[in-house]
Amino acid sequence: MDTLFQSYPVGLKDVELKEGFWEEYGRLVREVVIPYQWEALNDRIPEAEKSYAIHNFKVAAGVAEGEFNGLVFQDSDLAKWLEAVGYSLSCNPDPQLEEWADEVIEYIEKAQQKDGYLNTFFTLKRPEEKWSNLLECHELYCAGHMMEAAVAYYNATGKRKLLDVMCRFADCIDEVFGEEEGKLHGYDGHEEIELALVKLYKATGEERYLNLSRYFIDERGKEPSFFIEEWEKRGKTAFWNPSDHNKPDTSYNQAHIPVREQTEAIGHAVRAVYLYSGMADIAALKKDEGLKKACKALWNNIVTRQMYITGGIGSTHIGEAFTFDYDLPNDTVYQETCASIGLFFFAHRMLLMEAEGSYGDVMERALYNSIISGMGFDGKSFFYVNPMEVWPEASEKNPDRKHVMPVRQKWYGCACCPPNLARLLLSLRQYIYTCSGNTLYTHLYIPSKAEVAVGENKITLEQNTGYPWDGGIRIKLGLEKEMKHTLSFRIPGWCRSFSLLVNGEALSCEGRTEKGFVSVSRLWKDEDEIVIQMDMPVEIIQSHPEVRANAGKVAITRGPLVYCLEEEDNGTNLSALSINTDTDFQVTAEASLMKGAVSLTGKGFRTKETGWENSLYQPYRKEEEETEIKAIPYFLWGNRKKGEMLVWMNHK
Amino acid sequence: MDTLFQSYPVGLKDVELKEGFWEEYGRLVREVVIPYQWEALNDRIPEAEKSYAIHNFKVAAGVAEGEFNGLVFQDSDLAKWLEAVGYSLSCNPDPQLEEWADEVIEYIEKAQQKDGYLNTFFTLKRPEEKWSNLLECHELYCAGHMMEAAVAYYNATGKRKLLDVMCRFADCIDEVFGEEEGKLHGYDGHEEIELALVKLYKATGEERYLNLSRYFIDERGKEPSFFIEEWEKRGKTAFWNPSDHNKPDTSYNQAHIPVREQTEAIGHAVRAVYLYSGMADIAALKKDEGLKKACKALWNNIVTRQMYITGGIGSTHIGEAFTFDYDLPNDTVYQETCASIGLFFFAHRMLLMEAEGSYGDVMERALYNSIISGMGFDGKSFFYVNPMEVWPEASEKNPDRKHVMPVRQKWYGCACCPPNLARLLLSLRQYIYTCSGNTLYTHLYIPSKAEVAVGENKITLEQNTGYPWDGGIRIKLGLEKEMKHTLSFRIPGWCRSFSLLVNGEALSCEGRTEKGFVSVSRLWKDEDEIVIQMDMPVEIIQSHPEVRANAGKVAITRGPLVYCLEEEDNGTNLSALSINTDTDFQVTAEASLMKGAVSLTGKGFRTKETGWENSLYQPYRKEEEETEIKAIPYFLWGNRKKGEMLVWMNHK
Repeated sequence: MDTLFQSYPVGLKDVELKEGFWEEYGRLVREVVIPYQWEALNDRIPEAEKSYAIHNFKVAAGVAEGEFNGLVFQDSDLAKWLEAVGYSLSCNPDPQLEEWADEVIEYIEKAQQKDGYLNTFFTLKRPEEKWSNLLECHELYCAGHMMEAAVAYYNATGKRKLLDVMCRFADCIDEVFGEEEGKLHGYDGHEEIELALVKLYKATGEERYLNLSRYFIDERGKEPSFFIEEWEKRGKTAFWNPSDHNKPDTSYNQAHIPVREQTEAIGHAVRAVYLYSGMADIAALKKDEGLKKACKALWNNIVTRQMYITGGIGSTHIGEAFTFDYDLPNDTVYQETCASIGLFFFAHRMLLMEAEGSYGDVMERALYNSIISGMGFDGKSFFYVNPMEVWPEASEKNPDRKHVMPVRQKWYGCACCPPNLARLLLSLRQYIYTCSGNTLYTHLYIPSKAEVAVGENKITLEQNTGYPWDGGIRIKLGLEKEMKHTLSFRIPGWCRSFSLLVNGEALSCEGRTEKGFVSVSRLWKDEDEIVIQMDMPVEIIQSHPEVRANAGKVAITRGPLVYCLEEEDNGTNLSALSINTDTDFQVTAEASLMKGAVSLTGKGFRTKETGWENSLYQPYRKEEEETEIKAIPYFLWGNRKKGEMLVWMNHK
Repeated sequence: MDTLFQSYPVGLKDVELKEGFWEEYGRLVREVVIPYQWEALNDRIPEAEKSYAIHNFKVAAGVAEGEFNGLVFQDSDLAKWLEAVGYSLSCNPDPQLEEWADEVIEYIEKAQQKDGYLNTFFTLKRPEEKWSNLLECHELYCAGHMMEAAVAYYNATGKRKLLDVMCRFADCIDEVFGEEEGKLHGYDGHEEIELALVKLYKATGEERYLNLSRYFIDERGKEPSFFIEEWEKRGKTAFWNPSDHNKPDTSYNQAHIPVREQTEAIGHAVRAVYLYSGMADIAALKKDEGLKKACKALWNNIVTRQMYITGGIGSTHIGEAFTFDYDLPNDTVYQETCASIGLFFFAHRMLLMEAEGSYGDVMERALYNSIISGMGFDGKSFFYVNPMEVWPEASEKNPDRKHVMPVRQKWYGCACCPPNLARLLLSLRQYIYTCSGNTLYTHLYIPSKAEVAVGENKITLEQNTGYPWDGGIRIKLGLEKEMKHTLSFRIPGWCRSFSLLVNGEALSCEGRTEKGFVSVSRLWKDEDEIVIQMDMPVEIIQSHPEVRANAGKVAITRGPLVYCLEEEDNGTNLSALSINTDTDFQVTAEASLMKGAVSLTGKGFRTKETGWENSLYQPYRKEEEETEIKAIPYFLWGNRKKGEMLVWMNHK
């Protein structure tokens, strides 16, 4: 079925990460995050809020006493953990971990109802209310995450138990929902099942699952509104606040108009990009040009109007949502880690439809900035919100900013981001390469070894790079026999000049660069070596003038990394600092921050605080002194003492 | 008793406004606001939310059928209107208006309970719950506003009915509250009665009212917390949201520690400054140095740390509250009109304790900027929130800014600001002059005629000025006989140079200027004339460097007026504009905006929007063009087409 794609990814089993930046994150996830989350899911971390996720399944399975606890979507926490476990086991066998997973899969199987239904909240707490509040209660969302887990676990271990459970549940859902009379003409308030059903289809070949996903996508936003009718049916009450009788705003759930007519990213950001990912899947698999067009419009809206420089999305914490074009406030920002991950998923699916380097650019931008900023080096502390500036006192004392945490938090009661990070970081290797016809594309630069089937032959690619700290990439080929093939490498949008060598011989890039890729077509031989050397100067970046929050400000970048200032290096009140737009920055190794890391130092200016004697406003006078400004990679912020942080700084 | 004050105001009956800036506002209030609010209070404005304020009193009086409607503090809307009516009648007799007032005073008297209790919400709706939720239910707040009304109406008309009603209620309150055993050791969640009881004391001479006010002030914030105990007693529920069982945050009500220990303005801004006003009253009347010290600390905290350049306060709409030092966001600001009015009241009371020009500076700053910006020229549209920048699309689509209205709104369901504006504008004449011993101080420059008793003699002052549009003030004295006296005139903080002439002869200002006043002591004769000419150049102002929101930005002022840019004059995207800090501004008459008004135009720069082809971030390049920038007085914003507005703009 992969031929329906214009291209397909080189999969998890075919790529192995090698020592380097991302393998260290992978190790952290395997060795710390997954075991820590296992403890958390089992409510064994004294200082954290209890999860109850496994407890609920045990009770529903009849193997423990008690009642349901936690949030309505608590099941999904276990699902995300299981999915991460699947990715982990697919490259790093671990009998203990597999035993834990098998144990909870037992509970899950036993918790499943006869008709295939599976959801501990409704089974234990509100059995009569199943499927009565799709808008708010996440039944299909939880189902989707468990489907993703089932596919990952099956692919890794070959064990079918969870996959079978989830096929039965998918069958049950297919019985309940659909356009036929007597079925519910609905869809979930939190999109996720759409993309999950596509994965289930790919794992099983069952076309009904693909069609059900398409049904959910096409039904969404039709008139009369399913969500409004459902809300009227249940007496116009809200699950989260029974005394709230306001009519639901369905744009929060991207259900205000049919998805094919949507051109602006709107509503809850995670839900939006999960939906768009599912839409892109269906567009590709069903060769649906109309849906592809909607995907492109939404994509363009996000990346040219509503995306932070760090690749994050979500301009407001109220509804964790998109707002509107060019509204990218730095202080009240939401930019949830999960939303960046969702944008990464969406980008990857767009890439499968269209070999266009800018999709990989956004994957890279999100990955190296707003995604990994979400996790501390201890693997036990996380940011949900990734702010563009932090003033710790404001987080504490201005309620408009209380969602902006100045230090990473422990596992949360609503724990979406940590397991989402875990599953992405452990499956990152599947996002490096894609194949399309006679071309092998390289999208991410990560030390790794891949084995790619090309017709009846195989190519192995051994990729070495110091990315993101330097822009040199060396790829060594392994071939059983000579082969004519095209190798295309993404040249990131940030890269203004690069050189390309094959077996030590420089090739002209003239005529080889198209849509963000440089390509070499030739008869490749075993041990051929390609070297790409990208210049990685420090750049001073400005925003589109319509981004009011960044008027008069610039950010510092180097390669894929956005940099930021921290109080630790620059003293308090970072807003008093400014730089010239032609400042030369010095690149300095900062091994204490992270192996390979570099900081940037340059000349700047600081407004003096003298002469203010208890006044708040005075006629302007230039009172500043030269100072050294030091910037560190954004994703590394918040790993030292609590203090201020700033991405966009004033320029002269 | 006025001798207890260090100085006392020249009262309402002794000053008359003459044609000019403020008399036009006064006329607008008399001719439009008061009659319009009368219609609103009677629920006769079809397009506005119903008030029910008079309806409730009629029902409680037994002269109409029905039930209570509106908010728990609805009574106070009628009280504020009545107070304004009192001020209006004191200078502009109006039989129709007096008849309306007498009519509602009848209802009020009939609505009073036998024991003196008066509150239509509790009388009609929850008679058993009286005095059970001081934290949230505004009983003493409503009482306070009605006391202020009673005093104003009595002073204007000599009619005692409402005054007697409110004395009976004050007696009732004095029976219920106090330190004696068996009494409630409480105070109101919304301060107001403290300052109202002082007014009632001054009108009646009844010392118990003064002591009761002091009791409320001193009881506040003591341990154990009255509010917490009360909350526990009523089952830990909240009036506004019965399912909210969170422990109240008593700092919202300035009740977290005793008021004498408070040094930082905190919590709901209006409540705070009403409390501080009451504290200043008691400090002066009781010669209480400890309380005066607390007032000064709170005053200094506000004006040197938490006040917008427009004289507004309240940095967040969440709780309509102060946040913390130097946190003055421009986009998410609250800066409620009522809070500016409360700050004006506080400033005036500080001035009575201490002849210090900076208090008058703040009165002037608030009055000419954040206070009158609250009302449109039609007298029927009002801003609650006075933002420092407006992006209409953000107000609509970013929920963090939905409290920021880009156009003034009609009378509201919760209608605090319009009547508050009305009562201030109609009593403004009592804030112009104060007397202290042998000195007559002039604080505000307003065309007016005042008659001041000095011992057994009288001085009349005829003040003429084009303020705030020009800085010339001419004061003509009228004396029955020659008299040695000191006349002191506030020289505003914004004024860097001025000249002083008596009878055409320039006096040296050397040695005459102290604490913000220039003083002339001499033997004054009838028809002496003092002329003060203050230079009023355009100034470019910066904020204290700790105000992060204004880093790299400046504001334009001229005299007492803060200026702003509007889209109407400068096109869309005001954030793309910047100015040099030495820009020369031209002063141009703008009669179409307002009689006498001047706009400021100067050379500025606009960032070009070309060359961005669908990109959101690019390496910095200087792409700007020269443009003319036109600023209008802040208080006049929002009187033309809906559009952007900006106070703090980028500088080079």
